[in-house]
Amino acid sequence: MTSSATTSSTPTPVDAETRVAIDQLLAEYNLLLDHGRADELWTLVAEDFVSHGPMGVMEGREALKAWGARRVTQDAGEVRHFTGGTSLRWEDGVLHGVTYYMTFRSTLPEPTHPASVGEFHQTFIQVDGAWKVRSRDVVAVFGGANAAAHAQRVSGAEGQK
Amino acid sequence: MTSSATTSSTPTPVDAETRVAIDQLLAEYNLLLDHGRADELWTLVAEDFVSHGPMGVMEGREALKAWGARRVTQDAGEVRHFTGGTSLRWEDGVLHGVTYYMTFRSTLPEPTHPASVGEFHQTFIQVDGAWKVRSRDVVAVFGGANAAAHAQRVSGAEGQK
Amino acid sequence: MTSSATTSSTPTPVDAETRVAIDQLLAEYNLLLDHGRADELWTLVAEDFVSHGPMGVMEGREALKAWGARRVTQDAGEVRHFTGGTSLRWEDGVLHGVTYYMTFRSTLPEPTHPASVGEFHQTFIQVDGAWKVRSRDVVAVFGGANAAAHAQRVSGAEGQK
Repeated sequence: MTSSATTSSTPTPVDAETRVAIDQLLAEYNLLLDHGRADELWTLVAEDFVSHGPMGVMEGREALKAWGARRVTQDAGEVRHFTGGTSLRWEDGVLHGVTYYMTFRSTLPEPTHPASVGEFHQTFIQVDGAWKVRSRDVVAVFGGANAAAHAQRVSGAEGQK
Repeated sequence: MTSSATTSSTPTPVDAETRVAIDQLLAEYNLLLDHGRADELWTLVAEDFVSHGPMGVMEGREALKAWGARRVTQDAGEVRHFTGGTSLRWEDGVLHGVTYYMTFRSTLPEPTHPASVGEFHQTFIQVDGAWKVRSRDVVAVFGGANAAAHAQRVSGAEGQK
Repeated sequence: MTSSATTSSTPTPVDAETRVAIDQLLAEYNLLLDHGRADELWTLVAEDFVSHGPMGVMEGREALKAWGARRVTQDAGEVRHFTGGTSLRWEDGVLHGVTYYMTFRSTLPEPTHPASVGEFHQTFIQVDGAWKVRSRDVVAVFGGANAAAHAQRVSGAEGQK
């Protein structure tokens, strides 16, 4: 691993246990978020969790905890986050991952059509043997306008469930 | 695992061999169904298999076998089941899973647009060392009307291939 | 494994390490292709790589290397390949896989709607301990016209970035 070109052709392999744990972590995150359990999301991230995206910047697990507690009191419609294509790589001892996502929302005229398509760029860290999300950048590749509208609905609409 | 809150934050981990077997099982199920081999689906489920969904209730592997034998004689158009985001959890010794799905159908005006988006809620059981589907609830979150129309097409159209 | 019917009901299991390596390989292929790094794709395939699809026939890793070098000089718009549902099977000592895909393209009127939906039919081979793509057939099940239009854009448009 002497150059980035070499890294790409012969990456340090991610072992099966790790990949499977990350797959489960990502799926669980979506499941909680999509099923009215956003107040449990904080259990899946590290204490110094940081995220960037259409929702703005969130710093610290406590911030996600506060956001989740508020989120479950809101009615932003039915949402599903469909993910796939996770590629993982070790870089300077840190586990990085890119995961593709699609979101579906009942607030759209055609809820069966993806509202947005993009990528989660994440790092992961093991805490007491369990993998947690350390950082998450949400990159809306297509449908960014839909994502922004949803973010505004969620951030500006406290307790309207 | 003393309460449901604890279960969510520190679930019993699913080992790599198991998760990989379940991923393969789900992919194989879709592959057979989507490629005119529904008459082999019964090989992937337990003897006491039960399913609920837009197709109605199906009880027992023999029921799936009969359904599959009829299904391969029908022309319901080209269909693809796209799945992802599988989260697994052990609960009272039983392996549960939620998998997101999208269906695509040639019978729709725009076959590249998902016909329905939803979830498979499943349990799994190991039979002679191989994981099988023990139960499957199909929850159509979006596009339920399309799913129902397809179900009617398939159930009401014997031998019209 | 004495007949194809038997193969389907009791396939030789693919171990966790192998499946995880293939999942990573597929994800990495899409990541490079979707992020302007098509000139690195050749590092993921075998020397005698062969592919068939809307892009035509490609024979040999060198052909992919030449294609990738040209591809990164072209502006074919933003593209994302979303994959899932990989089923793997051993057949006469060769590892085969079917993976479902959706493509999204900025050149479509609605980039959040899949441009095409189909399957990668692939074989894999281990070279010096690392899994590589040995062959790839791209089967566009839905949206073949979009896929063909894109193929023409890419093949006919050298150096127009």
